Parts: sequence; C-alpha cells; structure tokens
Amino acid sequence: MVTPRILTGFMELLPEDQILFNRMMDTIRGVYEEFGFLPLDTPTIELSEVLLAKAGGETEKQIYRFQKGDHDLALRFDLTVPLARYVAQHENDLVFPFKRYQMSKVFRGERPQKGRFREFYQCDIDIIGIDSLPLYYDAEMPSVIYHVFKKLDFGPFTIRLNNRKVLNGFFSSLGLADQIADVLRTIDKLDKIGEEKVRLELGELGITEAQTDSIMSLIHIKGSTDEILAQVEALPVEDETFREGVSELKEVVSNMRLLGMPDENFEVDLTIARGLDYYTGTVYETRLDDYPQLGSVCSGGRYDNLTGFYTKTNMPGIGISIGLTRLFSQLKEAGILTGGSKTLIKALVVPMGPDQMAAAVQTAGAFRRAGISTDIYSLTKGMKQKMKYASRIGVPYVILIGEEEAAAGKVALKDMSSSEQKIISCEEAIQIVLSR
Amino acid sequence: MVTPRILTGFMELLPEDQILFNRMMDTIRGVYEEFGFLPLDTPTIELSEVLLAKAGGETEKQIYRFQKGDHDLALRFDLTVPLARYVAQHENDLVFPFKRYQMSKVFRGERPQKGRFREFYQCDIDIIGIDSLPLYYDAEMPSVIYHVFKKLDFGPFTIRLNNRKVLNGFFSSLGLADQIADVLRTIDKLDKIGEEKVRLELGELGITEAQTDSIMSLIHIKGSTDEILAQVEALPVEDETFREGVSELKEVVSNMRLLGMPDENFEVDLTIARGLDYYTGTVYETRLDDYPQLGSVCSGGRYDNLTGFYTKTNMPGIGISIGLTRLFSQLKEAGILTGGSKTLIKALVVPMGPDQMAAAVQTAGAFRRAGISTDIYSLTKGMKQKMKYASRIGVPYVILIGEEEAAAGKVALKDMSSSEQKIISCEEAIQIVLSR
Repeated sequence: MVTPRILTGFMELLPEDQILFNRMMDTIRGVYEEFGFLPLDTPTIELSEVLLAKAGGETEKQIYRFQKGDHDLALRFDLTVPLARYVAQHENDLVFPFKRYQMSKVFRGERPQKGRFREFYQCDIDIIGIDSLPLYYDAEMPSVIYHVFKKLDFGPFTIRLNNRKVLNGFFSSLGLADQIADVLRTIDKLDKIGEEKVRLELGELGITEAQTDSIMSLIHIKGSTDEILAQVEALPVEDETFREGVSELKEVVSNMRLLGMPDENFEVDLTIARGLDYYTGTVYETRLDDYPQLGSVCSGGRYDNLTGFYTKTNMPGIGISIGLTRLFSQLKEAGILTGGSKTLIKALVVPMGPDQMAAAVQTAGAFRRAGISTDIYSLTKGMKQKMKYASRIGVPYVILIGEEEAAAGKVALKDMSSSEQKIISCEEAIQIVLSR
Repeated sequence: MVTPRILTGFMELLPEDQILFNRMMDTIRGVYEEFGFLPLDTPTIELSEVLLAKAGGETEKQIYRFQKGDHDLALRFDLTVPLARYVAQHENDLVFPFKRYQMSKVFRGERPQKGRFREFYQCDIDIIGIDSLPLYYDAEMPSVIYHVFKKLDFGPFTIRLNNRKVLNGFFSSLGLADQIADVLRTIDKLDKIGEEKVRLELGELGITEAQTDSIMSLIHIKGSTDEILAQVEALPVEDETFREGVSELKEVVSNMRLLGMPDENFEVDLTIARGLDYYTGTVYETRLDDYPQLGSVCSGGRYDNLTGFYTKTNMPGIGISIGLTRLFSQLKEAGILTGGSKTLIKALVVPMGPDQMAAAVQTAGAFRRAGISTDIYSLTKGMKQKMKYASRIGVPYVILIGEEEAAAGKVALKDMSSSEQKIISCEEAIQIVLSR
C-alpha cells in the first residue's frame, strides 16, 4: 500500500473550495470574453528548443525539462512564450490585432515557499499587433481588470499605472541612460526599505546627490490623477521619450474614463517599473485596498517585439495576468473568500423508503428536464440520516416522497432555509424552485 | 531564430475551432453539474510512487516520467488513478457517495498515430461509495450521457449497455470460469473479424463446439430491449452471478426509463465487455448512429474497490469518460462540427476617423456595461478595410460613429446579416442588440 499524497507546492482543493475557485475562473473568463478576447489553449508540453529559445538563468533552472524518446521536452513556465510561439506560427491564419485569453496551469520547479506554487493557474490576456498597436488598448487592459475585480467583489481595489517612457526619458535626461536598470531596481525597493536607504544605494551606484534629488522630485509627485499628470507635465525635462510617455499616460487616463472607469479605482503611480528588460510603455499593478499585504494581484504592461525569437515580423503587444492559484490561496488565508457551498444542486429528491425509489427517480428526471440541478438520495438509511445529509451539503430544497405522496402523484417540497414544507404537485414544486 | 512549432500528437486549435471546442466543454460541464457532480482539479504532476502504484506494462511505457531535484515525478495518464488517490487521501473530508467530474488533460507518450494524441482532454464523471454503491447510479450514468449528447446535438446516438455479471456468470455455468478473459477477448472481435473466425479462435482456445454454440446463443440474442431482457432471462442458466446480472440489467433499464430516457437512445448489447480486469457490473459504450466509424465516443462502467492501493477502505464506484480531444478531432474530420465563429463579440464599434475615437470608446463602455460583448476597431485604416474586418470576423452588429453621429449623440447601427443600417441613440442600439 502507498500513502496517498501529493507534492508540496501543488494546490488541490476540496469540493467546497473548488467550487469557489471555479466561480472565480468563470467570472474572469466571462469578462475576458465580453471584451472580445478569444480563447487559446496551447499544449502543456513543448519542445525545449522552442520553449526555451529566450529563457536563461533563473527561469531555466525552474523548468520541468525531460527527455521522451528522441525529444527534449519542457512544461510551459508561463503563457507568454507559448503565445509568442503561437502567433508567429499562425501569423497568416490569425486576424490582427489578435486578442487572446488563456487560463491554464504553468509549471515552475521552485523551492517550495509559503505562497509559492510549482503548478499554478495564470489567467492572461494579451493583444498582439503587427508592426504597431493602437494606444487605445492601453486603456482597455485596465478596464478589463476593473470589470474583473468589480465582479469578483473582494472590496475596493486600485489599478496603478505608469509609463516606462516617462521613467526612461526622465533618467536619460539626467544622463543616467546607461544606469536606468540599476536605478529602477533600487527605486523599486522604495516601499520595502524606505527613502533613506534608497538614497544610500543610489549613492553607491555613483548617482550624485543632485541627480538623486531630481529622481525623488519625480517619484514624490502626489495628488489626484489630474494633479499628478499636471505636475509631471510641468517638470523641466527636455527629452522626447519623456514627453511621449507623459502624453501617452494622459491619453490612457482619458480613455479609461471614457470607458467608464471611476477615478477611485485607478491612480497614476510613477514608482511602478515592473519587468525591467521587458516592458516598454504603459505598466500596471493592482492592489486590493483592504489587503495591501497581498501585493499586486494583477500586473502587466506593454512590450515591443514579442516574437523576435520566432519570426522577422515585428509584433508589439500588451498584456496583463492574474496569478489565480496564488490569489486564491492568499484570499483564502486572509479570510476574504466566503459563501462556499458543498454542492451545486438546487434540489435533493429523497424517497422515504425503497418503494418510493421509482417515484423519486421519475421526479428527479422531471426536475432535471426543467433545468434544475438535482440529485437523488439513494442510500437505504433512516430519515434522520437522510435529512442530516441534506443539511450537511447545504442543498436549498429537499423533495420528500413518501407512500402517500407517491400514491397521490404529489411531492413534499421542503425549503431548507425556512424549514417550511408543503405537499404539492411535481410541476408546482419545479416552478417554486425555478422561481427562486 | 527558432522555427515556431509544436510536437505531433498535440492538439492546438485556431480561435474558431477553440470556440467550438470550449462550447462542447461547457455543454458537458453544464450537464455534469446539473446531475450534482462536483468539480475536481488534481495536479498534473504527481509522485511516480503514488501515481504508478498500480500501473505496469504498456501503461508504464507511455508515462511521461522525470526527475526534478530529489523527486521522481510523472504526468497523470488518466483521471481515474488521481481520483482513487484523492478519495483515499481525503476519505474523512468528503461526503459519500462522492460524485465528481474532472475535465482535464492527460498525457501519454504514445507513438503518434492518426487520431491518437499524446496530450488530450478527458471529461470524466465517477461516483464513489464506501463499501457499497446503490444500483440507481448505474442508470444515472447513461442518463447523464444521454443529456450530454442530446445537447451536443450531433444527431442520433445509442448508448449500449451490458452487465459483466451476465457474461461472467454465463461463462462460469459453461465451466469456462478460468477462460472468461480469453473468451471475452475473442468475442470482442466479433465486429471486426466475423463469427466464423471467432469460432475458429475459440476452438483454438479449447472451447468445444457445444460450448461455442451456447456462447453464440447468448451473443446473438436480438430484438427490442424488453425482448432481449426476456430472452436472456429465459436462458437455462443455473448461475447466481448470471441471475444477479440479469436482474441488475432489468432494474437499470427500468430506472433509465423512469429518468426519462427514450428507448431509441439505448440498447442492451450482450457483446460489450470492456476493460476486462477492471469492470465488474454494468458497462457502457456510446455510438453516434450516423458515424459508426467513430467507434465508442463515451465508455465506462462499474468497478469494485477503486482504491485498493491507497487505503483499506473498500470503495466501489462507477464511471464514464468522454475523450474530448479525440472526439473533437474525429467530428471535425467527419465534417460534423459546423457553426464556428471567429469572434465572441456581438458588437464592433467602428469610429469613422481618429476624431471619433473618444465617442467610440464611450459607446463601447456603455455596451459592455449593458453586458454586451463588444470590441472597438481602433486601427487607423480606410472605411472599406474596417468593414472587411467586420465581415471577416463575422460580428453580428457594427456600430458606426461618424462626425455627424458623434455630434448628435447618435450611432449608426448596422445589422451585418441584413446590411440594414439605422441612426439611433446608443441606448436604442443597446436594446436592439440585447433583444436579438
């Protein structure tokens, strides 16, 4: 005999939680589809040569990679590389801009830590253009995420956005073009280590105090969205990239409002950099206001040339991702996820004894044909145990069928929340359950 | 540069087909949930020691198995072994009978052949009991499948059922108890090689002509379901298992009818054996009547003691599985799958020029808030190209916004099927699209 178990770092849920998890998946998918994103489902296993064309360093170490027959194979570690491969491979069959969503498991053989998973769902949307991609989409992305988190209903949330061109151009104007990566990496720690230590570290990088003051003057711009935009615009920076970034930021904010996003759900945050060697324009993070400890629950941004390793066609894009497994586990731990149910059925048909089984089966058939999720209690147990089972799974209605009911062609409908019970026809019972 | 490609034996679809595939998934899931099956999502990667506790021979050769760190890992090759592991592991947390569905990819490193996949979806339902499981469920299984194929709408279909006890008891009464497996394997070829060759092969197994005649008298019973049941019951067989099987078969048929299954969608077929060392009671196959070449598109049956490798608790069960990737690819090839769409949106907002982009964005926001899947055409192209795009993706409605419309707070709603166009308010347009 083998002890039944799974590896650490893998999430497997009991039905009650799985129902909650699937509800989140369905909500996200529904919004993604409402915005016209098309479904994609790439293989879990790909050729290492193709999947790892770009990878290296830390990523490569985490890959589940193995040999089967003549093939060097690997499990996908994100959904972006398979997307790049897919659009390059099917360039001639797809309509661009290509908007796709994929909600699939990805695999990373990390050392297991709290909140880290080796197998987890990512729910990604990306829009890929050929040669160019309209700036409108930079507003559509946060609008999608706004609708997702509105529907997920975990309380107030804020989508923070920035534009990498603002940062890049600004640093370039300070003569720090070559050190952008280092500076941004240091600034990224502002929240964690505070300004003083950031200043020290910048000093260690050879940044002068005057340069640091300038940097801080940008980073510390605060106020309403419009105030922030006005202050950034008023900065005495002579740099084309910077100006382009500011102008883009303004247009994105304007479009977000036109799309109906309330100001309370977004803010411009000039400290956001994200994926240093990846993003090139608008970048996003999303926080649940009441649970800052969760960090960003949804991030992304605009990138150039997604498919450089696979095709000569230039394909810029924009994408955003929800790490659903991690988010679910965090929400669960924080006690935010409630309202789980042990069952998906609306009605449980309970025959009083074996002689009523035929009538029960018939009744269940009629309920299901009416589109009501229905189950039959078919074990030969006492009435007390039958009702205990009904309470335990939390089914809203029980349909009791005793000798008298069966003979009269009736059922006893019990509303489990009020404990009210009435003897009515099967059709009437169906109407009541449907109307709830 | 690396050529973007995937391995043979892996299915990856273009959006139009992926939409069709997902629609099938949703239909199947909807019916599974209507019958009270609970969702389960086990890890893709399991410990080899646990996953392969039972496996051996052919199965083991097909496994994707690899080492990562200290762990000997394997990808699941079906959904039944993970279910066995799961119910044994969570015995105390689950409510039994435990009804679960799982619709996930499984992995088999087979040599790629036409119609064989190395990574494919299985859509399984199983019901697991502790110590025993009511016979009612043997009728529920085909009833679920009836509803699934009714909703999938691929024309007439027949669920064929048998009971292994009928076969086992019958052969036992002939003194062929030890040769059941061999005889059944030979009989299984009836469709393929014909009676004459089956008789020859049975002879080679040492079966006498008298025994073969008896076997054929069982196998050749034909007629309506009730006629078949009456003939089987009338056979002069003195064997308890046989009698039990016949009685079960009768009750299952009776319950199937009570559940509302029409006789035209099922038949008793005494030649069905399936998974010889696995199934112990009712067994099923499903054929699409107009496409017999597809073989069984959905099979399963009742088994004893699912979890013997993981727990001392005796857990009998019943299950049925749809191999969706294979079915999809077969249906596609047979030309049965139609009605695919290149988009999920109902409305495409098209600004005439860049000056109408703001009005377009606003309009799209209003449509989406009304629950209409909407997209914006945001590329700066000519009107002809914009409309060509709309036709190409097959969107039902286009909302045109020109200078005049924008100024008057109106939109031009174009019904793409009739080419009719009218200038109305945004709210009126929303009502028309919603009402379709």
